[in-house]
Amino acid sequence: MTPLRVAACQINPVVGHLEANVSRITAAARDAAERGAQVAVFGEMALTGYPVEDLLLRRSFAVDSREAVHDLARALDAAGCGDLIVVVGFLDRDPDAPETSTNPTGGARNAAGVLHRGELVARYDKHFLPNYGVFDEKRWFTPGDRLVVLDVDGVRLGLAICEDVWWPGGPVAGLGELGVDAVLCLNASPFEVGKPAQRREVVAQRVAEGGAPVIYVNLVGGQDELVFDGDSFVCTADGAPAAGPQFVEHTQFADVPSLGRERAATVDGWQVETVSLSARPNAQYPQQVTGWSELDEYSQIWAALVTGTRDYVHKVGGRTVSLGLSGGIDSAVVAIIAADAVGADNVYAVSMPSKYSSDHSKGDAADLAERTGIHYRTEPIEHMVATFVDQLHLTGLAEENIQARCRGMTLMSLSNLDGHLVLATGNKSELAVGYSTIYGDAVGAFAPIRDVEKSLVWDLARWRNKVAVERGETPPIPESSITKEPSAELRPGQKDSDSLPDYEILDDILRRYVEQDQGVAEIAENGNNGAGYDPELIRKVARLVDRAEYKRRQYPLGPKVTPKAFGRDRRMPITNRWHDPA
Amino acid sequence: MTPLRVAACQINPVVGHLEANVSRITAAARDAAERGAQVAVFGEMALTGYPVEDLLLRRSFAVDSREAVHDLARALDAAGCGDLIVVVGFLDRDPDAPETSTNPTGGARNAAGVLHRGELVARYDKHFLPNYGVFDEKRWFTPGDRLVVLDVDGVRLGLAICEDVWWPGGPVAGLGELGVDAVLCLNASPFEVGKPAQRREVVAQRVAEGGAPVIYVNLVGGQDELVFDGDSFVCTADGAPAAGPQFVEHTQFADVPSLGRERAATVDGWQVETVSLSARPNAQYPQQVTGWSELDEYSQIWAALVTGTRDYVHKVGGRTVSLGLSGGIDSAVVAIIAADAVGADNVYAVSMPSKYSSDHSKGDAADLAERTGIHYRTEPIEHMVATFVDQLHLTGLAEENIQARCRGMTLMSLSNLDGHLVLATGNKSELAVGYSTIYGDAVGAFAPIRDVEKSLVWDLARWRNKVAVERGETPPIPESSITKEPSAELRPGQKDSDSLPDYEILDDILRRYVEQDQGVAEIAENGNNGAGYDPELIRKVARLVDRAEYKRRQYPLGPKVTPKAFGRDRRMPITNRWHDPA
Repeated sequence: MTPLRVAACQINPVVGHLEANVSRITAAARDAAERGAQVAVFGEMALTGYPVEDLLLRRSFAVDSREAVHDLARALDAAGCGDLIVVVGFLDRDPDAPETSTNPTGGARNAAGVLHRGELVARYDKHFLPNYGVFDEKRWFTPGDRLVVLDVDGVRLGLAICEDVWWPGGPVAGLGELGVDAVLCLNASPFEVGKPAQRREVVAQRVAEGGAPVIYVNLVGGQDELVFDGDSFVCTADGAPAAGPQFVEHTQFADVPSLGRERAATVDGWQVETVSLSARPNAQYPQQVTGWSELDEYSQIWAALVTGTRDYVHKVGGRTVSLGLSGGIDSAVVAIIAADAVGADNVYAVSMPSKYSSDHSKGDAADLAERTGIHYRTEPIEHMVATFVDQLHLTGLAEENIQARCRGMTLMSLSNLDGHLVLATGNKSELAVGYSTIYGDAVGAFAPIRDVEKSLVWDLARWRNKVAVERGETPPIPESSITKEPSAELRPGQKDSDSLPDYEILDDILRRYVEQDQGVAEIAENGNNGAGYDPELIRKVARLVDRAEYKRRQYPLGPKVTPKAFGRDRRMPITNRWHDPA
Repeated sequence: MTPLRVAACQINPVVGHLEANVSRITAAARDAAERGAQVAVFGEMALTGYPVEDLLLRRSFAVDSREAVHDLARALDAAGCGDLIVVVGFLDRDPDAPETSTNPTGGARNAAGVLHRGELVARYDKHFLPNYGVFDEKRWFTPGDRLVVLDVDGVRLGLAICEDVWWPGGPVAGLGELGVDAVLCLNASPFEVGKPAQRREVVAQRVAEGGAPVIYVNLVGGQDELVFDGDSFVCTADGAPAAGPQFVEHTQFADVPSLGRERAATVDGWQVETVSLSARPNAQYPQQVTGWSELDEYSQIWAALVTGTRDYVHKVGGRTVSLGLSGGIDSAVVAIIAADAVGADNVYAVSMPSKYSSDHSKGDAADLAERTGIHYRTEPIEHMVATFVDQLHLTGLAEENIQARCRGMTLMSLSNLDGHLVLATGNKSELAVGYSTIYGDAVGAFAPIRDVEKSLVWDLARWRNKVAVERGETPPIPESSITKEPSAELRPGQKDSDSLPDYEILDDILRRYVEQDQGVAEIAENGNNGAGYDPELIRKVARLVDRAEYKRRQYPLGPKVTPKAFGRDRRMPITNRWHDPA
């Protein structure tokens, strides 16, 4: 018996845009078939995109997803690859399940559909529904309780979806008892620093538990605040799997032989469905390259920021972006991320000096534009600021804030005229402590570095310049933007260090307080690599964070008097307008 | 055997402010004891406030809540009411349960503690965890599986928490088998139009199922976007319960006799814990009034808006508010809500006319201020707008938006100078379709009518004026603010009806599309009381809503590269700074 050739198709779908996703899947499947695949596997919810969030509450969306899976089956047939067995994630829904106030999505399922010769021939529902961190699946879905095995000319493939492989004793254990030859696992696993290694660790545990290789297929691309890095891979019992390709659409292949294992007919506690299929003949094809090196950490982070920014702009139908370029490090890094994401010619930078802006700031901003070829204009804010200050007699904080706000209004006005999406340039450290002006520098449609702490902003700037040198290009970021002391330049001689500790210290405290939920005493003892900090310093930072978090929760808060307002209850993906609510 | 006197204590806690909540509970308990109560019952999570959201991820918060319940027991004793049996909701946590990335709160429990003579003598964990609408309890808590009965000198009281009484076959059924004489149900049930009747319907079903009365105790007050209306009540098998007091802190009493029922010792599927307690002697006391009339619908809605606004301002430590007063209906209604919430003397209105503002607009704004005694000043925006328009050559939409934005900047500047919290004046209908300027009229810390559709804004204005007349007061809202045709006054002769259908039609479509998730075809057929609408009109409105929803999801979206950024992962209550993260 010859092995079965399985294609792992890593694609970038758009949430809600069923038509576009059907086309994308069909094209990738046809390509896989032409390259000899007999089975093609796509990511979790590849047909709808992930996460669909409250688009699920729109009754017609689930209906359209169910129809789209049949459309896809027919499209594959029409494209000449109906013989290919396609496994694809989609949103399923029991049409008879009632919608109730406590289960408003009825019987919605996070499902995998198996398509063959124009038909939906099998379906599997995800068992484990993650409901922590960025996941809200217990709000959205009803869990599955069946095991599904595809018997393809004697080679047996089990199905699993994402969280299903993160727990022992789950579907993979059951599939092991059923003696499958491989597990096809469909994923929508978002990027985080360190995630590739975590995935390999848990998947290797499942390979050991189930006694069969796992073919792990992830989505790729940015959607809302998530970035999927791809990193699809094949894990066998032989050893640690190689890295998968990250941040690009890609198809890789795996040959799955029959292992000739013992096969239980049933498994305690689960209903088992076995579907027998016959594959297309295995074509001649060249040897495939199946090894990648994991990108280094800065490369991964940069790719995540660029991918997130690019897909945000493109998936909402935009093309050009604008930003305020101050000469400082944050806006410099955002400008380069933007140029890498949408092309320098689609980036419009505006220098908006005030009477407190230093000459080197203006010079560095112009220098960056010169180095990179992004568009550049200067709009001094002096007259605007003076009009407000004189009429309203502004002083102190009010005078500082009006400068940031005149810049925000200038960017929004130019955006109204020219249609650019405004990028906010704030970093994670300053946003965490509220060192930012609401309706001022916080203005924007997307904030590329809002999850990048200040120390990392500098590291990325140095790294990106080094990459340019290695490629024989001009380093895009002026050296003085990297080395100058950070300042908001909202009053004479102002420095960040007037109000905040050094960023290295601040970032250490923030990481512990925000990311790791450590208390003041714990940070005072363990921070600074065990050397500790003054508890008063930590308390000051904690107070700033708590106050900034309250401010982030302000508008559009208002008292709810109807079941659905526009807050927690309705959380639509940025791409919701691609679905037609017929 | 004399009946047991139970006090239902309806209080307004502040999320995170454990010390303040301990004081408030102690004061209410002492008052209840003085008025003859032997048992005092408080709402769900009354000790921590509800909802605690991601404050739960702060390790020290659960530890402090566990300590606070013991502090409360001692405080009650010290206040001379240690003999009173107090049942209070709090956040419990298994100190040995590990925190993991998938269960970051460890073994957090939504619990009821029973306090007596300075000790925590029993605890019950909520079984049913709601995870729909505004509830996220499957993210936060581990469910309970025990039944708890308090045997107080032979009268047996069962415990239940909120969602536990919304489902058949739950703890109340088990408590029925155990033959309890009453069920004490602790709730944090937010207000919605129609909610009081819903509560009575389900609680009456549980009374029938459990064969015992239910004493239903709710929280009251605003917290974040939720408003708890109180409405605590007692439901017996004899008939429909009377309404409870709404939107005020209040204690009512119920006398619970022994029913002499048959008592099973165990119930299949549950562990049962029975705690025997001896009550203080039943003092002489006057007869209590226990009947209220439910407020009419407009009174309930108005009270919810006023309570939500008042508690938002006060719970974040504020006192004064400001708003832009245009002469139109929306800002007029927000001004009156604010005056009713925090007192006219704490409301600062600013008229900000442009060259397009009509004389009647300016006159109506001044007239309202005159009628109500709120502070009033005029800041024309003409010079500010001209500075931007001239320098940036603004036309069309950019010119319209800069007017709204100069008003927003003016309010924020004055807020920076004087410390007022800015109220946004947008209504639900215009926010739904994006008829609002981001960073302009959308500026503010709180938006009192963001969940009130335009038709209801008018109804509330007329109703509030009528109430004033009935009280012999001057109607606060000038008649012409109610009757004039709505206009944003951002260009000459502009009317809302240039871009939008009549609000009666718009609101009907929005209610169906947003609140009821109907599709275009369904609305076209059923809308307008069955007379239907042109599908093109509905499609136009749907497109506006979808586009506005995308805009609401913009900043601070950015690509996540670490497990916890500041988006979905960290959702702190507005009052988080009241908890000291020691």
